[in-house]
Amino acid sequence: MRVDVLTLFPAMFDGVFSASILGKARDKGLVELNTVNFRDFARNKHNTVDDYPYGGGGGMVLQAEPIFLAVEELTGALSASRKPRIILMCPQGEPFSQRKAEELSQEDHLIFICGHYEGYDERIREHLVTDELSIGDYVLTGGELPAMVVIDSVVRLLPGVLGNETSAVTDSFSTGLLEYPHYTRPVEFRGWEVPEILLSGHHANIEQWRRRQAIWRTWRKRPELLEHVSLSDKEKRWLEEQIELLSDTTE
Amino acid sequence: MRVDVLTLFPAMFDGVFSASILGKARDKGLVELNTVNFRDFARNKHNTVDDYPYGGGGGMVLQAEPIFLAVEELTGALSASRKPRIILMCPQGEPFSQRKAEELSQEDHLIFICGHYEGYDERIREHLVTDELSIGDYVLTGGELPAMVVIDSVVRLLPGVLGNETSAVTDSFSTGLLEYPHYTRPVEFRGWEVPEILLSGHHANIEQWRRRQAIWRTWRKRPELLEHVSLSDKEKRWLEEQIELLSDTTE
Repeated sequence: MRVDVLTLFPAMFDGVFSASILGKARDKGLVELNTVNFRDFARNKHNTVDDYPYGGGGGMVLQAEPIFLAVEELTGALSASRKPRIILMCPQGEPFSQRKAEELSQEDHLIFICGHYEGYDERIREHLVTDELSIGDYVLTGGELPAMVVIDSVVRLLPGVLGNETSAVTDSFSTGLLEYPHYTRPVEFRGWEVPEILLSGHHANIEQWRRRQAIWRTWRKRPELLEHVSLSDKEKRWLEEQIELLSDTTE
Repeated sequence: MRVDVLTLFPAMFDGVFSASILGKARDKGLVELNTVNFRDFARNKHNTVDDYPYGGGGGMVLQAEPIFLAVEELTGALSASRKPRIILMCPQGEPFSQRKAEELSQEDHLIFICGHYEGYDERIREHLVTDELSIGDYVLTGGELPAMVVIDSVVRLLPGVLGNETSAVTDSFSTGLLEYPHYTRPVEFRGWEVPEILLSGHHANIEQWRRRQAIWRTWRKRPELLEHVSLSDKEKRWLEEQIELLSDTTE
């Protein structure tokens, strides 16, 4: 996979693209990660890439031309059949999800466009990009961090990127439930003990305990996620009992 | 404000903490940004900070002790009344929101704990942290990028961090609507023209057009957001007309 990021702040990516999983995937040749400063495509003497909005109002707007030219330089040599995904990071984009990460991980070439505390000229959105993504309903100073988030979540899905040792624990969304509690040594830390069942060696009981903990935690913290999980009848009855117990104690 | 980040990958933060708004806020003395490698608090000869999970299963689990010791070194000198917020970045945390960013921007001291493709020993969650946050329902390799996202969204709210020129456009969530379309020069780019109304100079009409574009875009892309927006009766009628026109054309 090849990933290109159009940004006015390429240095922001140095640490993230070199460290950890992304750095390793790059070193192994599993992904090519590039940044492109689209200011290099400004065609005016001050190298400006933004201008005042038509119709007035505060803020500046990124101009269409430098971004079109930067993308076209990246795609110019490609055959028409190898179309990259051109992804605009913006607050009004489609909410990013694990499903979208899986979809993007099937592509050969992703191009990210990151604005920075400015609007985009609408013609970029209408005539250049294939996807608009938002990582969440909060305001950030630019699209750079959202692009890093999307890239991290996509690259970790590429074959060979995650070793076996790292793939298991984090996949909290694969069951649709939040994760069950984890414990490691020591058995007692400052008087707080590991639940006895985890030391019992009885695997079936441990599995049941973990599954129920995951169900319970999801019900307490993110009940809307449970709608998409199929619970067995036994699990449903158990959950109802727990809810009843809880309402008894809080009354 | 002071921000400390506990991480095994401090180098990931170099670019992000030095560039753009965070770098400027730091240079102006408006925020202190530190990283702490909690591996320095491991008390064993190989400096390991994780171990196998009790009860078996894949993956590794971050141990309680190094993280407790790192946090205690940061908070040791503080008086009991100046309690920092201790924030665990994890998929089962509270979904991060603009409201949460505003809440955190009122604090003097934030400590972020970032795990990395591993679980946390549950005793960290139960006995150390004050907040658990998730930036969205997608799987990442670590808490580092989510911590950067939260820090960016919080620091930009601190007084003096954003100049006037940068504050206006991005606040898409302040009206509860997605942003209206922006356009800047040239008037015509590759045959695509700026909407005439934006060139009219008629401010009241431009305001109405922008508001309606924002309403329409929100209805098309994120209809659930409209539930929290109060539209005037006139705007409601206009929106109903548009929806009717749309269903006429698609039939």
